[in-house]
Amino acid sequence: MSIENLHAVPNLTTVLTGPLRKIEQTLLDQQSSIETWFRKQWRKTPAPFYASVDLRNAGFKLAPVDTNLFPAGFNNLNVAFMPLCIQATQSALEHICPDANQVLIIPENHTRNTAYFESLAMLQEILIKAGYATKIGSINPEFKTTQTIELESGRSLTLQPIIRDGDRVGVEGFYPCAVLLNNDLSAGEPDILKGIEQIIIPPMRSGWAHRLKSGHFSHYQNVAEEFAAQIGIDPWLINPLFTTCGEVNFMKRAGEDCIAHNVGNLLEAIQKKYDEYGITEPPFIIVKADAGTYGMGVMTINSVEEARELNRKQRTKMSKIKGGQAVSQVILQEGVYTFENWGSEQAVAEPVVYMLDHFVVGGFYRVHTGRGRTENLNAPGMHFEPLSFAEPCNAPDEKMPPDARPNRFYAYGVIARLALLAAARELDELKRDDN
Amino acid sequence: MSIENLHAVPNLTTVLTGPLRKIEQTLLDQQSSIETWFRKQWRKTPAPFYASVDLRNAGFKLAPVDTNLFPAGFNNLNVAFMPLCIQATQSALEHICPDANQVLIIPENHTRNTAYFESLAMLQEILIKAGYATKIGSINPEFKTTQTIELESGRSLTLQPIIRDGDRVGVEGFYPCAVLLNNDLSAGEPDILKGIEQIIIPPMRSGWAHRLKSGHFSHYQNVAEEFAAQIGIDPWLINPLFTTCGEVNFMKRAGEDCIAHNVGNLLEAIQKKYDEYGITEPPFIIVKADAGTYGMGVMTINSVEEARELNRKQRTKMSKIKGGQAVSQVILQEGVYTFENWGSEQAVAEPVVYMLDHFVVGGFYRVHTGRGRTENLNAPGMHFEPLSFAEPCNAPDEKMPPDARPNRFYAYGVIARLALLAAARELDELKRDDN
Repeated sequence: MSIENLHAVPNLTTVLTGPLRKIEQTLLDQQSSIETWFRKQWRKTPAPFYASVDLRNAGFKLAPVDTNLFPAGFNNLNVAFMPLCIQATQSALEHICPDANQVLIIPENHTRNTAYFESLAMLQEILIKAGYATKIGSINPEFKTTQTIELESGRSLTLQPIIRDGDRVGVEGFYPCAVLLNNDLSAGEPDILKGIEQIIIPPMRSGWAHRLKSGHFSHYQNVAEEFAAQIGIDPWLINPLFTTCGEVNFMKRAGEDCIAHNVGNLLEAIQKKYDEYGITEPPFIIVKADAGTYGMGVMTINSVEEARELNRKQRTKMSKIKGGQAVSQVILQEGVYTFENWGSEQAVAEPVVYMLDHFVVGGFYRVHTGRGRTENLNAPGMHFEPLSFAEPCNAPDEKMPPDARPNRFYAYGVIARLALLAAARELDELKRDDN
Repeated sequence: MSIENLHAVPNLTTVLTGPLRKIEQTLLDQQSSIETWFRKQWRKTPAPFYASVDLRNAGFKLAPVDTNLFPAGFNNLNVAFMPLCIQATQSALEHICPDANQVLIIPENHTRNTAYFESLAMLQEILIKAGYATKIGSINPEFKTTQTIELESGRSLTLQPIIRDGDRVGVEGFYPCAVLLNNDLSAGEPDILKGIEQIIIPPMRSGWAHRLKSGHFSHYQNVAEEFAAQIGIDPWLINPLFTTCGEVNFMKRAGEDCIAHNVGNLLEAIQKKYDEYGITEPPFIIVKADAGTYGMGVMTINSVEEARELNRKQRTKMSKIKGGQAVSQVILQEGVYTFENWGSEQAVAEPVVYMLDHFVVGGFYRVHTGRGRTENLNAPGMHFEPLSFAEPCNAPDEKMPPDARPNRFYAYGVIARLALLAAARELDELKRDDN
């Protein structure tokens, strides 16, 4: 499959519509009270500066499966939404850092990932157009000199080595008052950033060294329950069930009993909900490293037997995540089918929604021909085609059917914001733990 | 000339480019410091809830000629900017009225102006999509029952008579905490709104009963001078010269000496600037009712002789403005040529820029074939074709020439925001006078 135009209008079909149309209708009908509810939540717990949320749309269920507080993939957004990104960035930075005129972006340590560089260039462009002089300072010790990279998009990206000068970091001649992390700090807080007087956005505690997926999904569960009570739906329709196992060592086969046992319990719980809604597909489970990121350390499990009979390859794959950290805790999460298909080849598609502050600014579909409906679509080395959303998720149209594009995208924006709210509460809790 | 598609991409040519390209280049070069300057200004003096600004682009000069704090014409904006309007509305209302979930719009008293109704329907749609239950309560005593009007756009508009219940106004069963004025209160503050406990957005002092155009342009002059000093340009390039005459009665021919005298002085001052910049066109002056609105009470004067020889028709036209108020004070303002042309017929075009809070959300051109380059394009009964901007004015592109569309629109957005800032200071002054 080749996608001629990355900014083409997605024309996706959902095989199973079932209750989802009902969720979408409920969200539409209650739009005004939903927005009011969100406003109240953001006043209590302000949204993080930015986030992207991976959703899975099973037709009968729409749920977040991953929340990234250091989003990449900005290059996959519809260029038509650039003004929306600019406005949201202005609004966000005015609150977080009213005096800032300049921003230093700290990127991931990648040295050759051109897709990431395209995203970084787009992020820099958004900040510049929002009126902030912006430079990029890498904490990768391999970057010893300034490098300018010409990108396929026609953009050029200048990466400079970060410098620490007393209590400030910057790049040569540029020590702004705001530092924007686009590095998930999987390897922990870098020494060069410790104790700096500049404001770090989002705070370093947002890094994966401090977060656990299970912590996020515990908060999400509460958010989903409160929201579901508010609009009168079964929270399960928007909330993936999960459980955890601590102290797992895949290579030493320690903790496998816990996994097998929990897989059994979880499959049973899912089957019960499937029966309730008349869903005939078999349930499945996604096992992930609890502190993992970047799609590493993820596997699909369909049965207790499968959990007991992990082969060497699976165990090796699960034992390491980004930065080489060993996996010691895992989260077992209800697998959510992706039943949105694209094109004549019925490629599998997974929506990713982007937010700046509490504003939804667009998204894209990961479209994938080589993968099944139960598989993780975001894994290292995996090729997917990005397909920009045609609409920015904040403009529902009550005159159209609930599954019409603007309304489906609105639904995506609502669920993604629930995950954003869970992240906001999670960071708030980490902050309170710090004090 | 027929414009098939109101949302066509404007393809305007500027006959004289001269120094404007230089202004545009300067604005582009200093974008980051300009945005920083604006941020500082909005912190000192928050922007009004909404505004539209009429600009004139003379090629050698780009200046605001009117600032409307109760904008209509939302229907003329590019529908592609709806998400931007939604986001800006959310951002604005969160600050002004954090607890509001519902809004009552108070419209103009028009009973048959379908273009206005289209704008009103669009404004209501923006608020609803931003998550606010919104109804329209008319203060026109002719509205005794609820009326639903089906509009050409396919929208339908429900106008209800406003009701006062104790210290609150509303429509039947709907007494929200926020009242949004889309009525310029030319006839003064209506009794039904006096002393209500609800928040009125913008405050009633924003009405033309309290404002004078000369008050606005005095503030604009200060803003233009501060801004010009900041970016290093001659303030005249963005500021129309003006003077006033008080106690004029056109029908009784009182005050005409003042007008003729000031026309002479002003023409001389403009000619001096024209000579400085080598502009060979003759200068001209726009005489307007100082408290006027709606394009009423406006005339073009080319010489002292013309000012002395006003005919009966001109005097009658100048003697009354909207709501039947008599004109008693006038403002004489440097006429700014409109040198932007559109289409093969070289129709005259005047840009109008819309802002919600301090965010520019788009604009349109008033395109007019029947009028000259020195005439007012916004007058009652005048027909103009609206031509939506193709870009929303907040996304300049430094890789393109300064007069390329996104950059010209950015320049429009900057100058319009200067007028918005003048209005903010004007309202702040009126507020201080109230206390």
